[in-house]
Amino acid sequence: MKMRAAAEPTGAERARLAEPKHLAVRVYYEDTDFSGNVYHASYLRFLERGRTEFLRALGIEHSRIFENGGSAGCHFVVRAMGIEFLRPARMDDTLSVDTCLNGLGGASIEMRQEISRGGEILLTANVKIAIVTGGKARRIPAEVFEKLKAVAPAPHQEKYLLKS
Amino acid sequence: MKMRAAAEPTGAERARLAEPKHLAVRVYYEDTDFSGNVYHASYLRFLERGRTEFLRALGIEHSRIFENGGSAGCHFVVRAMGIEFLRPARMDDTLSVDTCLNGLGGASIEMRQEISRGGEILLTANVKIAIVTGGKARRIPAEVFEKLKAVAPAPHQEKYLLKS
Amino acid sequence: MKMRAAAEPTGAERARLAEPKHLAVRVYYEDTDFSGNVYHASYLRFLERGRTEFLRALGIEHSRIFENGGSAGCHFVVRAMGIEFLRPARMDDTLSVDTCLNGLGGASIEMRQEISRGGEILLTANVKIAIVTGGKARRIPAEVFEKLKAVAPAPHQEKYLLKS
Amino acid sequence: MKMRAAAEPTGAERARLAEPKHLAVRVYYEDTDFSGNVYHASYLRFLERGRTEFLRALGIEHSRIFENGGSAGCHFVVRAMGIEFLRPARMDDTLSVDTCLNGLGGASIEMRQEISRGGEILLTANVKIAIVTGGKARRIPAEVFEKLKAVAPAPHQEKYLLKS
Repeated sequence: MKMRAAAEPTGAERARLAEPKHLAVRVYYEDTDFSGNVYHASYLRFLERGRTEFLRALGIEHSRIFENGGSAGCHFVVRAMGIEFLRPARMDDTLSVDTCLNGLGGASIEMRQEISRGGEILLTANVKIAIVTGGKARRIPAEVFEKLKAVAPAPHQEKYLLKS
Repeated sequence: MKMRAAAEPTGAERARLAEPKHLAVRVYYEDTDFSGNVYHASYLRFLERGRTEFLRALGIEHSRIFENGGSAGCHFVVRAMGIEFLRPARMDDTLSVDTCLNGLGGASIEMRQEISRGGEILLTANVKIAIVTGGKARRIPAEVFEKLKAVAPAPHQEKYLLKS
Repeated sequence: MKMRAAAEPTGAERARLAEPKHLAVRVYYEDTDFSGNVYHASYLRFLERGRTEFLRALGIEHSRIFENGGSAGCHFVVRAMGIEFLRPARMDDTLSVDTCLNGLGGASIEMRQEISRGGEILLTANVKIAIVTGGKARRIPAEVFEKLKAVAPAPHQEKYLLKS
Repeated sequence: MKMRAAAEPTGAERARLAEPKHLAVRVYYEDTDFSGNVYHASYLRFLERGRTEFLRALGIEHSRIFENGGSAGCHFVVRAMGIEFLRPARMDDTLSVDTCLNGLGGASIEMRQEISRGGEILLTANVKIAIVTGGKARRIPAEVFEKLKAVAPAPHQEKYLLKS
């Protein structure tokens, strides 16, 4: 009988780990435009903060993997995004940015993100991310990969398909 | 025999009108991030400038349709975007933002956009846009619709399908 | 003998109220530029967040005074800033934005702000603010003025002079 | 009798060279906030574009001096700014950013900038700039210094005093 390695999470642990990570974001003057609502590209800044905090919660820091990535550094790049803008956010709103890992390959990461306000979803996004050193795509460093694997959905359990 | 109205463009005129509109964009400090390349959300600002100039070339100005839109104003909102980030842009680059109308409905507009540098495509985007008054979607004002129709692709001739 | 009104703060209360309000700000990708440090204009966004939270702590919300300001709305505008950039902030830093009221007139507000990291001051700013309705400067609404007065320095006790 | 070197500009040439360099900037959605006007920090982005084009006109490119600056790179940093916000800019405005060199030291540059619309001045700024390699201030590289000297005001002829 094959034994489960000590560090490998159980189904319940995996389910808990795979839950979306949450970040609260306040809307300031800088985020709005003359329509009175949040400028559409500002949501991408909120999403990127959400992904950064998602990674930080796993012990993955941009500045550190950049410095450890060799002479030219190693950093995440967004390869593709599919975004639905459902309802507008407004000045002074407190928003919730929820992020979960939706797919993990050897050289790419898929994340699913939602921005909501008081339970009402304002925006959904599918984000495909790669890792780059000196301008060239590379495999995800082993240390980073292991941390991501712990929160990845079980195979064939991706809740969402990346549309773009 | 039904006569073609004087103002209606011929096939050749229509083809010329339907050509992408071009905007040159310079990359400044503000657009870059610590990876050394352009920050991914900055491209959305470039795309939005491209759409604004596309509309301005047709005689459609954001500030004017906003003021003419009644008490709460009338403005464009992005409903959905599908973006592929193919290659990075860098500090001091001069980029080309090309925009064309890819679809036109009574209450929505689809645009296809590309960002390139010296003929090399860096980014492609499909953008779905609606018009809003006082927070509610509405039909495109007739004056705006007519101007868009003149540059719309012939039915069944959309070159690209909106993926997201 | 003139009695002090019940609501008027004592010297100790006033000193406590006049203490700077603190906001923690995290540095994200969006805030940096290709030099590897925080882009200089990003600090102005941090300062503006600090002022917004300073005002919110006093019960003054931008969106509410805007809506209550009549047909054209009423909002704060920055009239002048003097900024010293002493040391750079970097990706992933947690910064402290400290804001205090440094002067209060009938139609203008002076704030003193500092951005620091672990006790080390990175930036100092003096900011002069006015209130505007329909494009024209106006007296500070009484409700807002009273809230500001409670945290204003005693006359002749401005710790800093607005240099610009 | 000491001869004037061939390359040294005459008084008339110097006066012409010292004239402000002009950059046209269009206001887009991204630059505005919910007050309906341009967000105050957006003007700093316009000013930085103006300084970048001022330097480019002299043959000084950020990306090139960065790459030539040694292992850690060499780049300009803003040390201090004094800004007066006189009148608001609005959506769709075309602005003029005028930049001139107001002072030149061995390790620092002072620039005077104005933003105007149709001849009406909206904003004035004095900007103090240093050059940094690997986080440390350094003397301006000789090649850059010579190019700046050609457009510097004659001693004691600074038209404006840096207030901050």
